Amino acid sequence: MTTTSSFARGSHPSDERALLTHATIEAWKQGIVSGDWDAVSDVLAEDVAYHNPASLEPYVGKSALVTVLRTVFNIFQDFEYLREFSGESDYVLEFRARIGDAQLFGVDIIELNEHGLIVNLMVMIRPADVVGTLSAEAARRIGAAGAAAE
Amino acid sequence: MTTTSSFARGSHPSDERALLTHATIEAWKQGIVSGDWDAVSDVLAEDVAYHNPASLEPYVGKSALVTVLRTVFNIFQDFEYLREFSGESDYVLEFRARIGDAQLFGVDIIELNEHGLIVNLMVMIRPADVVGTLSAEAARRIGAAGAAAE
Repeated sequence: MTTTSSFARGSHPSDERALLTHATIEAWKQGIVSGDWDAVSDVLAEDVAYHNPASLEPYVGKSALVTVLRTVFNIFQDFEYLREFSGESDYVLEFRARIGDAQLFGVDIIELNEHGLIVNLMVMIRPADVVGTLSAEAARRIGAAGAAAE
Repeated sequence: MTTTSSFARGSHPSDERALLTHATIEAWKQGIVSGDWDAVSDVLAEDVAYHNPASLEPYVGKSALVTVLRTVFNIFQDFEYLREFSGESDYVLEFRARIGDAQLFGVDIIELNEHGLIVNLMVMIRPADVVGTLSAEAARRIGAAGAAAE
């Protein structure tokens, strides 16, 4: 990893990649905070894997993730991004929000592919009991929407 | 934040700080994976705040944190650090471990003071139900140790 990173830092393709990465992260954040799900969808790979805070197994696919995000961001109040961290080709975005009186903090761990699209999103939230509240409410709403569409 | 960062990057004190930060993070990781709690303690500020995965309110103080770490790392099996991410003066270390058959992933979000000591540690773990298992077991062991010491 050190070799790749040292090499990549000086090379032109890496600069392009850095710009692409930066553009994706900015588009993601802007889309999330403004609820622009088309803009969010545009920076997701078709086979994006979503590792949610409640269960180990990921959901796979753009439309599954957009449905979850749409639902979750209807439940979150006062959502805002806080600190940012960067890795080799991955990002961590810290956030906070509340659900009623329950404050929560979390991270998006975002992995990009070579086209600058998000291929992996892992979300962790604390305190853990809020995850139970959130996932029960999200499941209820997604279930209700599914039933209404039938 | 941009101004501070651009200024700091070129300045000598910042190079010193970067070295100090790097040394602290390496000492932390080495101490954690080898269970060397004295080494871990050496890189903690006296008033370090620990934001655990289970509850919103932090624990404050070096000895409280070391007690928690000692206990938790007796419960974790196959712990290993994965990706690393850096921010302005903060780090994110991703890890995985298991408790029996339950796999878990987590992050340490580490904030350092100007002396390169850890002043804030926030831990998030997924899936959320593992946090319940972990905190119940940790509380039981810390309680039992407290009772035995009386």
